[in-house]
Amino acid sequence: MTDRKVRIAILGASGYTGAELLRLLVRHPGVEITALTADRKAGQPLADVFPQFVGLNLPTLVTIAELDLDGLDLVFCALPHGTTQTVIADLLARKPDLKVIDLSADFRLADPQAYARWYGHEHQAMDLQGEAVYGIAELYRAEIRKARLIANPGCHSSTAILAGVPLLRAGLVDADDIVTVSSTGMSGAGRAAREEMLFSEVSEGLHAYGVGSHRHTAELDQEFSRASGRPVMSTFTAQLAPMNRGIYSMNFFRPVHAAGAPELHAALSEAYADEPFIELLPLGKVPQSRHARGSNRVLIGVVPDRRPDRVVVISTCDNLVKGASGSAVQNMNVLCGFAETDGLPQVALFP
Amino acid sequence: MTDRKVRIAILGASGYTGAELLRLLVRHPGVEITALTADRKAGQPLADVFPQFVGLNLPTLVTIAELDLDGLDLVFCALPHGTTQTVIADLLARKPDLKVIDLSADFRLADPQAYARWYGHEHQAMDLQGEAVYGIAELYRAEIRKARLIANPGCHSSTAILAGVPLLRAGLVDADDIVTVSSTGMSGAGRAAREEMLFSEVSEGLHAYGVGSHRHTAELDQEFSRASGRPVMSTFTAQLAPMNRGIYSMNFFRPVHAAGAPELHAALSEAYADEPFIELLPLGKVPQSRHARGSNRVLIGVVPDRRPDRVVVISTCDNLVKGASGSAVQNMNVLCGFAETDGLPQVALFP
Amino acid sequence: MTDRKVRIAILGASGYTGAELLRLLVRHPGVEITALTADRKAGQPLADVFPQFVGLNLPTLVTIAELDLDGLDLVFCALPHGTTQTVIADLLARKPDLKVIDLSADFRLADPQAYARWYGHEHQAMDLQGEAVYGIAELYRAEIRKARLIANPGCHSSTAILAGVPLLRAGLVDADDIVTVSSTGMSGAGRAAREEMLFSEVSEGLHAYGVGSHRHTAELDQEFSRASGRPVMSTFTAQLAPMNRGIYSMNFFRPVHAAGAPELHAALSEAYADEPFIELLPLGKVPQSRHARGSNRVLIGVVPDRRPDRVVVISTCDNLVKGASGSAVQNMNVLCGFAETDGLPQVALFP
Amino acid sequence: MTDRKVRIAILGASGYTGAELLRLLVRHPGVEITALTADRKAGQPLADVFPQFVGLNLPTLVTIAELDLDGLDLVFCALPHGTTQTVIADLLARKPDLKVIDLSADFRLADPQAYARWYGHEHQAMDLQGEAVYGIAELYRAEIRKARLIANPGCHSSTAILAGVPLLRAGLVDADDIVTVSSTGMSGAGRAAREEMLFSEVSEGLHAYGVGSHRHTAELDQEFSRASGRPVMSTFTAQLAPMNRGIYSMNFFRPVHAAGAPELHAALSEAYADEPFIELLPLGKVPQSRHARGSNRVLIGVVPDRRPDRVVVISTCDNLVKGASGSAVQNMNVLCGFAETDGLPQVALFP
Repeated sequence: MTDRKVRIAILGASGYTGAELLRLLVRHPGVEITALTADRKAGQPLADVFPQFVGLNLPTLVTIAELDLDGLDLVFCALPHGTTQTVIADLLARKPDLKVIDLSADFRLADPQAYARWYGHEHQAMDLQGEAVYGIAELYRAEIRKARLIANPGCHSSTAILAGVPLLRAGLVDADDIVTVSSTGMSGAGRAAREEMLFSEVSEGLHAYGVGSHRHTAELDQEFSRASGRPVMSTFTAQLAPMNRGIYSMNFFRPVHAAGAPELHAALSEAYADEPFIELLPLGKVPQSRHARGSNRVLIGVVPDRRPDRVVVISTCDNLVKGASGSAVQNMNVLCGFAETDGLPQVALFP
Repeated sequence: MTDRKVRIAILGASGYTGAELLRLLVRHPGVEITALTADRKAGQPLADVFPQFVGLNLPTLVTIAELDLDGLDLVFCALPHGTTQTVIADLLARKPDLKVIDLSADFRLADPQAYARWYGHEHQAMDLQGEAVYGIAELYRAEIRKARLIANPGCHSSTAILAGVPLLRAGLVDADDIVTVSSTGMSGAGRAAREEMLFSEVSEGLHAYGVGSHRHTAELDQEFSRASGRPVMSTFTAQLAPMNRGIYSMNFFRPVHAAGAPELHAALSEAYADEPFIELLPLGKVPQSRHARGSNRVLIGVVPDRRPDRVVVISTCDNLVKGASGSAVQNMNVLCGFAETDGLPQVALFP
Repeated sequence: MTDRKVRIAILGASGYTGAELLRLLVRHPGVEITALTADRKAGQPLADVFPQFVGLNLPTLVTIAELDLDGLDLVFCALPHGTTQTVIADLLARKPDLKVIDLSADFRLADPQAYARWYGHEHQAMDLQGEAVYGIAELYRAEIRKARLIANPGCHSSTAILAGVPLLRAGLVDADDIVTVSSTGMSGAGRAAREEMLFSEVSEGLHAYGVGSHRHTAELDQEFSRASGRPVMSTFTAQLAPMNRGIYSMNFFRPVHAAGAPELHAALSEAYADEPFIELLPLGKVPQSRHARGSNRVLIGVVPDRRPDRVVVISTCDNLVKGASGSAVQNMNVLCGFAETDGLPQVALFP
Repeated sequence: MTDRKVRIAILGASGYTGAELLRLLVRHPGVEITALTADRKAGQPLADVFPQFVGLNLPTLVTIAELDLDGLDLVFCALPHGTTQTVIADLLARKPDLKVIDLSADFRLADPQAYARWYGHEHQAMDLQGEAVYGIAELYRAEIRKARLIANPGCHSSTAILAGVPLLRAGLVDADDIVTVSSTGMSGAGRAAREEMLFSEVSEGLHAYGVGSHRHTAELDQEFSRASGRPVMSTFTAQLAPMNRGIYSMNFFRPVHAAGAPELHAALSEAYADEPFIELLPLGKVPQSRHARGSNRVLIGVVPDRRPDRVVVISTCDNLVKGASGSAVQNMNVLCGFAETDGLPQVALFP
């Protein structure tokens, strides 16, 4: 696919994940940005919606209906949850060889019953749901390479999953005693105007949300169960921190079989030895979310608790990059045979 | 003691907890602010150090050596950890009937060995250490009433302790399986100039600190053990959030004896029914730190996890008020026979 | 009016200025909070809308139509611009001796033509417009004392007006060469959900708005003209800063008649010598907005430029307190014969 | 110089501008990062000082004395003001054909008397001072191409100079009536630990600093005078805003010869027609600093005031990029014959 540029469209280019895809893709050597959609803002220049792109000569926003599918190889779908599944079903019906990388939650859960339970309605494209590959390249690189439809994971989920899965696969921790507190910046909530997202409602304070019911938990269940070979339910709570970007996931594990922090560190070290975007810190070092800001990296720290039966594994990334658009680009790179780091060379913006 | 105004001094008035004591005490009906010390800034008007007090006609800063102890009834000690113990020992040697409310960590641990272990050196005033009362009025009101020396608790500790102690006293939760993630604003770190406290090192990001080794853990051990009647060690980690004020403590408990979130909620409700500063939200409601900002209140929420063997109890307050200077004033009110809410009527500043 | 408590209602209690009125009035010794309106949230407990009031036993929200006017002495009107004028006209028609303090812009401009020009439509209650007193107590205390309807000024306007009017009255500066750059925190924009008010659109950046056309400019024109005795048009621009609270007004004046910074400082010193809420800093000192946060104070600094023909006068306050709800309470105090500082004793919340 | 990679060193790599140089240069196709100095942190891996570089395999920090000058073509100097001049004099004495791009203030003022007046002491390398080229590529590209020593401009200065110089050159505005209010984020102050730079002293508030005396004013004088052909003194004040990055410069001009906003806009449009990093917005549009964050761009807006004798020109950029390290890389590109955009392709990080 790489002898000419891959022609891509971004559906939902007026949201934050859409803008972040653009930030990365305008510098991607193998991609031609062919179309940008935003149904309610169709007809507007992108720079009216996102002034950081002024002067970059990008396509004007169009509706999805106006898309010319023939001229497209791959579509990034950055649309709201729930409606995405019918949009994608329709696109693939019209052009079966189109590649789709979906940033919504619609295709993340492979089990239709789990989907119905967590999202409150039956899935509208159940066959595609079965086909979709869960888009964490570090875990499913081989499957992504052959996929037609990639379900990009949730930001909380992927951050916690990358911390936990190698430990569960190695059988080093008790799968029935995992507690995760995952803090996020505001950009993960998108750009829709809602009272609880106003500056004054978010700044100078902290609060948990979705306690016991956050939908990203369903992804943890799926991946922790796959890694454990049996059904696993962890405890997960999300917090909103007064910042734009960052996922900061504190994961408390109970080691088994006399393992401790060094064994957990070794398992992660082995699992991610060749990964370009995963940086495991030396044992005992604590990462900061700001040192991943704007980059596609995940920083992981393993810290022993004073209780010998607990180990804290902290994983952190930028929710808009590795937690969303960056991993989507990474998945495209795997899928299209590009170098996996193409378009993703950014060092974190700090300060 | 209340027929005339209580003459107080603040030692360490150039720090944030000192300033916060002043903010509250300038409006306290029963108090006369007699002296303010700040050894390195002695001779300066307070308003040069804290411009918010310009025009309020407060005493000029002096050294501790310049204090006239005869003219004082009570001293708030807002000095650094470690040196405070000898300062207070000296004050009480010179004036044995002086009342002292200490905001440092020096007298919080009743056990000399625990002190030595957590703080790295032997205590320099061991007899006073035994005499000191741990200053959480909601738990030790009777003892505070008769105390000479009150050890005001740490901000993380008191927030988590208020969530956990009634549950442990009631035997509703497993004392060996408590996980606390407590996030704090920057003001709790004080006003000393250190690189890691610079705006650019704190804003737009999150990070854990003192993982497995935070000294406030020692207070949790002490109070959770007292409440349980046997030695207890919980798992505690602190996070620094990009905000000035707020402690947000997420406490994960494992209920025992078929108890669940409703039973835990009921126990907290009973324990705090008459407390003016503790507000237990309806079962399932999640508090936000910003709704306690600037007030002396603790907001507590009890939320069931989807796992039946876990309950999340979230407690939050302003680290400088109920987490430090406000509870110090509350302790003074108890000790001096004032109404417990005197000087503490502020509703939270939100937005 | 002060032999019994003044019975007040707040119209628009679900907005930020409404909440701020409540924060101040719950501690006011002379006031009984009788009713709170919020048409779209009628029937809800206030604490559902503003959790900082949980446990304070305040009236449940009602619609304006449900108000019992007989039981009211005074109404604070914190409703949107434009519709307020007909609401107030109706209230006063039904109860002519009601006192009204309006926090909207509807009655600030005495000149109907100026109103029509700046607000784009004819005023709907022109007789009341003529009656209304512009509510800066430091300038119109005598008029406020006798008023029935007080038009509380805009936050940018009052901050700049307090800096400029004494200088113009004294004839010390060129009225045709005034440049004001006034920065504000986000809370001044209210609680309506709009994209440009989202956390991610406001944090980590700065931008001007309403350049050359901000409606608060009309108030500057009115008051600067009154003070000068002839029509005056200044240059005014507003900036939005990533903070909740604070107005920071940098005013550039060109002194006349060989005056300089010392003469300007002296004129302000004389004008505000007895004012409880205006703090003029020593000549050359620069105020910070954070040192007024949460208090009703205005801090003013006079700083010479290196150009002898320019002087910078910086005035700053909390936009929700002295810039809105605090000055409204101050106006009520003047109107009702309370001590002017009743309900307004708060020292700034810093840090 | 471009047939092999240019070997560069960064002196002062442990500060924010040093880190920002690295962020840009690690992706620069024509550069080899040969050495990094930080005298007080020599011997430490860079990633201990700036964890965002972990895993990037950059040189360990050394002292300046340890530098191997023979292996270097060009040095970026990100050292403190005052001492830099002797460091650079020494380097050039030892290796006369070394190229130096200095980010300190030491060589910005061509006039030794101006230097002495603004910096309080005689310059220690006066001959070099005469040789240095002021490093705004948009104004001095030809000189930079031939330079040995480039004095990178101050962040406030360059932002305001780019707004004003084309207008002064064209004779469109009164050079004796310029007022600039320039707001900056905190990162511009560097990483030295000082009380006034602590998070709690900077967040949730705004304040002016260096009013009438900010040293960047001297650069405005120099460049505005050069552009006008006669001595010019403008009025300049700086403000600190609670954000990491961003310079936001509001410049008030008085047009002459019946010019107005359209004429000023046209002059800027002509001046910057071919500039890759300057984006002039359509007449009347207001830029936001966040839309330049992390990029090397300057966004400029021209907005008419309602007073016909005033026009507001707003220029904004990222203080660490175009205001410091980005323009330093741009200058290197000009000097070394690279494409001017090499290493500087980043689109702004928003949100």
